[in-house]
Amino acid sequence: MTSDPNHVWVPFDRLKTFIGSALTAAGLPQTDAMQVADLMAQADLQGSDGHGVIRLAPYIRRIRAGGMNTRPNIGLVVDHQAFGIVDGDNGMGHLVVSHAVKIAIEKARQYGVAWVGTRHSNHAGPASLYARMPLEHGMIGLYFAVGNANHMPPWGGMDMLLSTNPIAAAIPAANEPDIVLDMATTMAAYGKVKAKAKRGEMMPEGWMIDREGKPLLDPKRSDEGFLLPIGGHKGYGLALIVGLLAGTLNGAAMGKDVIDFNQDHVSTTNTGQAILVIDLNATGMADTFKQSVDRLEQDIRNSTRLPNCERIWLPGEQSHLRRQTYAEQGIPLPTALLSELEQLARDLGIASLA
Amino acid sequence: MTSDPNHVWVPFDRLKTFIGSALTAAGLPQTDAMQVADLMAQADLQGSDGHGVIRLAPYIRRIRAGGMNTRPNIGLVVDHQAFGIVDGDNGMGHLVVSHAVKIAIEKARQYGVAWVGTRHSNHAGPASLYARMPLEHGMIGLYFAVGNANHMPPWGGMDMLLSTNPIAAAIPAANEPDIVLDMATTMAAYGKVKAKAKRGEMMPEGWMIDREGKPLLDPKRSDEGFLLPIGGHKGYGLALIVGLLAGTLNGAAMGKDVIDFNQDHVSTTNTGQAILVIDLNATGMADTFKQSVDRLEQDIRNSTRLPNCERIWLPGEQSHLRRQTYAEQGIPLPTALLSELEQLARDLGIASLA
Repeated sequence: MTSDPNHVWVPFDRLKTFIGSALTAAGLPQTDAMQVADLMAQADLQGSDGHGVIRLAPYIRRIRAGGMNTRPNIGLVVDHQAFGIVDGDNGMGHLVVSHAVKIAIEKARQYGVAWVGTRHSNHAGPASLYARMPLEHGMIGLYFAVGNANHMPPWGGMDMLLSTNPIAAAIPAANEPDIVLDMATTMAAYGKVKAKAKRGEMMPEGWMIDREGKPLLDPKRSDEGFLLPIGGHKGYGLALIVGLLAGTLNGAAMGKDVIDFNQDHVSTTNTGQAILVIDLNATGMADTFKQSVDRLEQDIRNSTRLPNCERIWLPGEQSHLRRQTYAEQGIPLPTALLSELEQLARDLGIASLA
Repeated sequence: MTSDPNHVWVPFDRLKTFIGSALTAAGLPQTDAMQVADLMAQADLQGSDGHGVIRLAPYIRRIRAGGMNTRPNIGLVVDHQAFGIVDGDNGMGHLVVSHAVKIAIEKARQYGVAWVGTRHSNHAGPASLYARMPLEHGMIGLYFAVGNANHMPPWGGMDMLLSTNPIAAAIPAANEPDIVLDMATTMAAYGKVKAKAKRGEMMPEGWMIDREGKPLLDPKRSDEGFLLPIGGHKGYGLALIVGLLAGTLNGAAMGKDVIDFNQDHVSTTNTGQAILVIDLNATGMADTFKQSVDRLEQDIRNSTRLPNCERIWLPGEQSHLRRQTYAEQGIPLPTALLSELEQLARDLGIASLA
């Protein structure tokens, strides 16, 4: 594996330290920088490589352009028993959502269930990171977010009013890996389209359509078309509901108010997210529940496979294995990305990653 | 319309009275019978005709076989602040879920958000009915249910361990129709497959596969294959999460414990459902929210359409229009169904519907 000339294996801690140094150099207080760095490196550790260190340069570009607040006053602005809204004061999304999840966990411990939304937040990386946070407290996490660029029209339309608005859910097991779902409500995330273009591959039918409503297969033409929702009108409905719950409900951007953060580095994105936490202790049967999850996982894993299917996976199981492997062997970073990070290190005057 | 020889238009109230009489004759207390009748007739009124009066004969068959309790002791068995679990004592699902939603609304008024699950419940009709109940209280409803027969294997497998586990969500608007999503996590609900078979039509590719993993297009061969989830592995993950939240979490059936209620009329189904309610008053900006929902609906409805698209719909808008039309003109019931209901009326010794 280490003989692969296109990748360099970087230990988690080294990656985290590098990201933290970069964000500190960009103006974040060191504690905040290290908290974001930990989450970004965790994204890479679990293989969510579209949401990890690859985002460092864009984040810093936004900070330098004045589009993100390095010294935010993040706080609970709506606090009604089990319900709350956190205003992120345009700070980095990782800090804002972590704060919201922390409050939701405390509230769930008290009320059995809690819902906390965010506004004036920003892109926060992979949804699963936040859905998973309640797990270590013996709690279930559900996470909803408004994406940071609209790539999907309503079903039947061609004005891009919706994003890939993701859903994540994390369910604690006893001895089996926890079940963790993390999915965009579109057939493909936009990052996967860009990856296909980079590799010179065609997209399968069903990912995108063009302005005639015909299948769009060439990812290099992706700006001529739109992402398709999962299950047609169903995924459109899901993306809309997620946007209403994670955005509109908190006074955050949704629909035509969503900023394309790849094009516009200055305007406040007013990103919204929401976390739901359920404390298993509230059910009075936490252990029974976790054992049932184990049994269900075993039933599914050991069930009869279709011809050509090598293994039946549980949601989150592949990320789980990746975390273990990468923790031992290091995280594979493409050499092209590494060169970009070396350039960034020189710009910021920090130590090199490699 | 009334010249269509295959349908008879029946007023809502007459349908409701008929269902209520039938259920009373089958042994339910009259108040319970009328509550179920109202919900079943409402299902037909909004066009959810697979979940309305068409289910009356199967329900009564189950009651007569001893598979459903006509005098259940429905009550809250777990009560932890904003979280609760209702045990339905094997009563009709409509009664059990209505009770759970009522409690969730009360809890949400107090705590801002509430989550109430059910166990020992039964099939309760269309998910949207229950998600919509909080609307008139200025609240958001989200509903999850475990289906009453497994028709879907895990992704890559062929043991049917999952049902079409639906998700419903209802979001209040100000002057526009409320947004109401009601979707199975499979590409098609099983009822749609049966309807295709009845009409002698083929299914589109993507609804089902056979035991070789190949597309199954003939709905008459549906017992040789499986329903496919929306978005491939994504819908599999969603169905699993819904089942864990609506079933396992409440001590209700999930996975291989799910009874096929079309085949087995005697065993307790131990059906599970869950409702999440958010009180808009907790946000301190209920009116602003509802106005934002209106604006979003207008933006979507008025957005540019693809060629051949006549209208862009909001989720729930077609049901909303159908409720208005059917309330005026009556609910169209197929004459074949009407004959079955006449037979049922004679069996039960109640007045005829027609």
